[in-house]
Amino acid sequence: MSVKVGIMMGSDSDLSVMSGAAKVLEELGVEYEMTILSAHRTPDKFIAYVRGAAGRGIDVLIAGAGGAAHLPGMAAALTQLPVVGVPIETKALGGVDSLYSIVQMPTGIPVATVAIGGAKNAAILAAKILALHDEALAGLLQAYTDNMGQQVNDKADKLEKIGYAQYLKEM
Amino acid sequence: MSVKVGIMMGSDSDLSVMSGAAKVLEELGVEYEMTILSAHRTPDKFIAYVRGAAGRGIDVLIAGAGGAAHLPGMAAALTQLPVVGVPIETKALGGVDSLYSIVQMPTGIPVATVAIGGAKNAAILAAKILALHDEALAGLLQAYTDNMGQQVNDKADKLEKIGYAQYLKEM
Amino acid sequence: MSVKVGIMMGSDSDLSVMSGAAKVLEELGVEYEMTILSAHRTPDKFIAYVRGAAGRGIDVLIAGAGGAAHLPGMAAALTQLPVVGVPIETKALGGVDSLYSIVQMPTGIPVATVAIGGAKNAAILAAKILALHDEALAGLLQAYTDNMGQQVNDKADKLEKIGYAQYLKEM
Amino acid sequence: MSVKVGIMMGSDSDLSVMSGAAKVLEELGVEYEMTILSAHRTPDKFIAYVRGAAGRGIDVLIAGAGGAAHLPGMAAALTQLPVVGVPIETKALGGVDSLYSIVQMPTGIPVATVAIGGAKNAAILAAKILALHDEALAGLLQAYTDNMGQQVNDKADKLEKIGYAQYLKEM
Amino acid sequence: MSVKVGIMMGSDSDLSVMSGAAKVLEELGVEYEMTILSAHRTPDKFIAYVRGAAGRGIDVLIAGAGGAAHLPGMAAALTQLPVVGVPIETKALGGVDSLYSIVQMPTGIPVATVAIGGAKNAAILAAKILALHDEALAGLLQAYTDNMGQQVNDKADKLEKIGYAQYLKEM
Amino acid sequence: MSVKVGIMMGSDSDLSVMSGAAKVLEELGVEYEMTILSAHRTPDKFIAYVRGAAGRGIDVLIAGAGGAAHLPGMAAALTQLPVVGVPIETKALGGVDSLYSIVQMPTGIPVATVAIGGAKNAAILAAKILALHDEALAGLLQAYTDNMGQQVNDKADKLEKIGYAQYLKEM
Amino acid sequence: MSVKVGIMMGSDSDLSVMSGAAKVLEELGVEYEMTILSAHRTPDKFIAYVRGAAGRGIDVLIAGAGGAAHLPGMAAALTQLPVVGVPIETKALGGVDSLYSIVQMPTGIPVATVAIGGAKNAAILAAKILALHDEALAGLLQAYTDNMGQQVNDKADKLEKIGYAQYLKEM
Amino acid sequence: MSVKVGIMMGSDSDLSVMSGAAKVLEELGVEYEMTILSAHRTPDKFIAYVRGAAGRGIDVLIAGAGGAAHLPGMAAALTQLPVVGVPIETKALGGVDSLYSIVQMPTGIPVATVAIGGAKNAAILAAKILALHDEALAGLLQAYTDNMGQQVNDKADKLEKIGYAQYLKEM
Repeated sequence: MSVKVGIMMGSDSDLSVMSGAAKVLEELGVEYEMTILSAHRTPDKFIAYVRGAAGRGIDVLIAGAGGAAHLPGMAAALTQLPVVGVPIETKALGGVDSLYSIVQMPTGIPVATVAIGGAKNAAILAAKILALHDEALAGLLQAYTDNMGQQVNDKADKLEKIGYAQYLKEM
Repeated sequence: MSVKVGIMMGSDSDLSVMSGAAKVLEELGVEYEMTILSAHRTPDKFIAYVRGAAGRGIDVLIAGAGGAAHLPGMAAALTQLPVVGVPIETKALGGVDSLYSIVQMPTGIPVATVAIGGAKNAAILAAKILALHDEALAGLLQAYTDNMGQQVNDKADKLEKIGYAQYLKEM
Repeated sequence: MSVKVGIMMGSDSDLSVMSGAAKVLEELGVEYEMTILSAHRTPDKFIAYVRGAAGRGIDVLIAGAGGAAHLPGMAAALTQLPVVGVPIETKALGGVDSLYSIVQMPTGIPVATVAIGGAKNAAILAAKILALHDEALAGLLQAYTDNMGQQVNDKADKLEKIGYAQYLKEM
Repeated sequence: MSVKVGIMMGSDSDLSVMSGAAKVLEELGVEYEMTILSAHRTPDKFIAYVRGAAGRGIDVLIAGAGGAAHLPGMAAALTQLPVVGVPIETKALGGVDSLYSIVQMPTGIPVATVAIGGAKNAAILAAKILALHDEALAGLLQAYTDNMGQQVNDKADKLEKIGYAQYLKEM
Repeated sequence: MSVKVGIMMGSDSDLSVMSGAAKVLEELGVEYEMTILSAHRTPDKFIAYVRGAAGRGIDVLIAGAGGAAHLPGMAAALTQLPVVGVPIETKALGGVDSLYSIVQMPTGIPVATVAIGGAKNAAILAAKILALHDEALAGLLQAYTDNMGQQVNDKADKLEKIGYAQYLKEM
Repeated sequence: MSVKVGIMMGSDSDLSVMSGAAKVLEELGVEYEMTILSAHRTPDKFIAYVRGAAGRGIDVLIAGAGGAAHLPGMAAALTQLPVVGVPIETKALGGVDSLYSIVQMPTGIPVATVAIGGAKNAAILAAKILALHDEALAGLLQAYTDNMGQQVNDKADKLEKIGYAQYLKEM
Repeated sequence: MSVKVGIMMGSDSDLSVMSGAAKVLEELGVEYEMTILSAHRTPDKFIAYVRGAAGRGIDVLIAGAGGAAHLPGMAAALTQLPVVGVPIETKALGGVDSLYSIVQMPTGIPVATVAIGGAKNAAILAAKILALHDEALAGLLQAYTDNMGQQVNDKADKLEKIGYAQYLKEM
Repeated sequence: MSVKVGIMMGSDSDLSVMSGAAKVLEELGVEYEMTILSAHRTPDKFIAYVRGAAGRGIDVLIAGAGGAAHLPGMAAALTQLPVVGVPIETKALGGVDSLYSIVQMPTGIPVATVAIGGAKNAAILAAKILALHDEALAGLLQAYTDNMGQQVNDKADKLEKIGYAQYLKEM
């Protein structure tokens, strides 16, 4: 299978968050590529990367950025592929700056924005898009969802069995 | 062609915004259905609608809601289809409440959030997703994008030609 | 005495806060049940739980959730019982997202919202509601309140006696 | 039937919002009293009013206030009755000041806070509390809820029938 | 000299901040009293304390409180003495809740609000008020101010002398 | 009687708000002067004005400013007189910018901040300070306060008498 | 004299604000060019424009944009010229989104950000930069500043002469 | 070469951030001076410093301040030199107070504001201004920019080579 998702981030300081997207895609068996690219510091490479994405077989781009986060929005301006934006939490403003810089795009250039720090959800959203034409992936996604529900149920069972005091001790 | 996009909103007070999504889909020749459904006031009908969407051939759901906006997130919990959320502007808080209620979803249940009031962008995002497997639509999207750029250029030409004072008078 | 209060939370990561509600209810001798349920991850179980609550004799539901917190509001949509919502503090936004997602409910579906992290107050509010028809509980609540006041007075006495410097050392 | 709900507000400038609570209670056949009282400007009368409420047969207090809104929280400090707080929208800050001043109460003194401007929901919440021991009221509340759902369905039918363009014209 | 300033706080958790006010008053030789009093938990004692303050010779009240901070505003409603409010920093919201609850008072009941955590400034403000009729105190305040300026100058000299690298090492 | 209060504002666009302070002082019989002065545009005149205030017999300065509001804080840096700051509402940010610029002063330089747009309260606060050594003014302030309470009571009586529907019509 | 300042904006809806920059530059006799360019809708033209600016003799770029405002930051990434950013006020969020998107730039790519809607100040800042090597412009800037101060003084004189009541009538 | 940039800060607690500006200027070979000066605590020295700056050959002032940050704006009021403002992060409000106090300047007195904590960018902005008339500096700036891009590319290469798991371990 060819690479279907491109994950990019503006700095390696975003890697601990953005690697969450890679892990989810691996769990779901979706081929991806991941790179560090800056709309501000490496604009030419960034533009070439985004414009070449569709030609490399990529269907969805995931872009994480913090502060005055221009990476997702500029990517969306340079390709017809859907772009998923991940606002990275920032120290001073908690990531509200990142969120506003990514989600408040003008008409014509949408970025599919997920929660602050929501790299895993960016991957799941990408997988949902790919699964529209990939039944095997749809099945894996359903299993992923079922498993999440099962984990909640297991925790509920455990809480009922041992009580909150013991549960908290074991956390 | 069958219906590909389902647009829902929690109240007819959202219709003036959400109709923007319908108009864009019409421009792009994408079949859609649009309804008013409340996760809070008509929960059973809402659940049935969302769970039945994939079976009706729908590929993308667009949900607009304001305040404690649960419609997009609950829809995303009830289907594997990608859900695009439109935060509706609110009088007291400007729509920050809607935005946070839609975008800050927990891991596993992403909502592809667009700008406050960004119904048109929700439609364009849906079209970008559909265009991954629809070359005709991809062409229409490209034309839409080109046209937007042309409009900017036309305005720049007009500004250069008549100057800002005259331009402002004609607005 | 039968179970009067149902405490639910979206994730066991909320348990350290929500256990505060359980502790207060225990102090006041109010029977409760507590479980982990997700409107997003276990929607069917969640719906069944909320719709069955009144039939099990429950009078008040307490729901804690963080981020795009839909649990309290969706519960309020599914039952005529009063629902008390506890916004859980979040890392990026401090819990403003949780607060807005819980308190800004549309007309018809109120959630009785308490402070961010205010699980103990959710329990006291539930007890105030139950005490309207339970004189013994009303007495216990009054004693709880009197005791709080006494603790403030004791601290004031201690401060007067030993001075702030010594008081701070002993904290 | 005796008066069950006391509605108070800090100023007659809050009356256009707070009258919404009165109207809902009238629809539901709940006896109420409504007055203007200021924790700041008429503190003694306010204290006497709140402390006398339970003795007058009142079960729930509803308090609306804006800005540094102390009315609901001070009422909750002076009675064991449940107090529902309505943050009034403010011109400069949109009512975030009112909301924080009402919802962020310290442990021991909860205020059941509803949305900014949510006077109708305050009344519904009060009715939900009263309905725990009033089957007739429970029936009326259920009918109220059903009617809300029916209105949503009627709007959905209308939208389907006449389309959004015509619907918007008729609004 | 008699007691001129009364410092109150809602909880001993505020003492580490509010003791800053006491320290400044000590430095300036202003007699003060300090106590823990809650508008919510000990309302009667609180009311008696504030109403008796002027009779005890107190000229200025300083009140620190956090969250839905009603202590300063309620004090201002119960006395004609100027009340200085200190918003205490809160964990979830950083003290914006405290600030809004204290500063946004309605017409007629001002609270002289200082910065979040600004207990020292509350004391200096109280001293500025007292110094209007106390020349000795005015002299001490001027010396305090001069000393602050001198400290800034000393730091500037040190920075010039040893450079920023060495300065940072010595911090 | 000599001038006791100096009212300054940064621009005549603040006059409609700041004149509220003048009116209250007139009601209370307090002599004042009022001028337009800019810390940014007329720094030398501003510095001279503030430094000369005490010598002219002024006891309290009131300063209103909006946006990056430096007028109150710079005044407080240039005199030992208490300075009351009035944050002026701003179009884009509602006055949060003004509030933060005025209230968040560093240790040593307090500004007694009142609510956004709270010019009347600034005057009352100034009067409270002056009344510490002016029994006649103290009496007038008490009457002012009593009158406010009476107005609330009159409104409550009117509401009881004519009901909310009629009351709203007459507003 | 050659063109020294380039003013760009993302949309002609920004023209009423951004024309303020043009007017100030005209007053100061600074040659400028002004155009409409979108980083999102006309990326190639935008890139060419910014990269060509220095070669055309431009010394300072002024960029106004609203919402997820990428124009100033992307310009700063594409040229060594100083870029002044003007956050445009937005309907839902007041321009906080624009401000954060412009000012919170990563290390290496500063944007000289002015106030929300501060197009005139952007021009004055540009003129201050140019005046470092243009004595005539420095003189004009000084006159501009002196004139502003004089206007404040004239208003102060008028206020003193006619009083606030009359002044407000004449506004 | 003479001193071209003056760096000032309100307190030595800002030095760890503001030294970042000094380091960048050293890397770029720009002469600077750095001092601690308070608009509030040492107003006369501050005024003299700013008014003397141009005469000492300084072209750009950089001012860092936190909270009610008046240093940059007051400096801009006292000189025709461009002033770059650095909002310092604050504990309670994260630096939003500093940002608003610096950026929201009134017409006529711009401050070139950079990101919260953006001292390095302040220096780069100053260098960009100086480089307009200093080709050697322009070359150094270009090299600085190129080097930043190279670092991003190196990180991208490393990520591609060793994968994210190993990369994260080495961080």
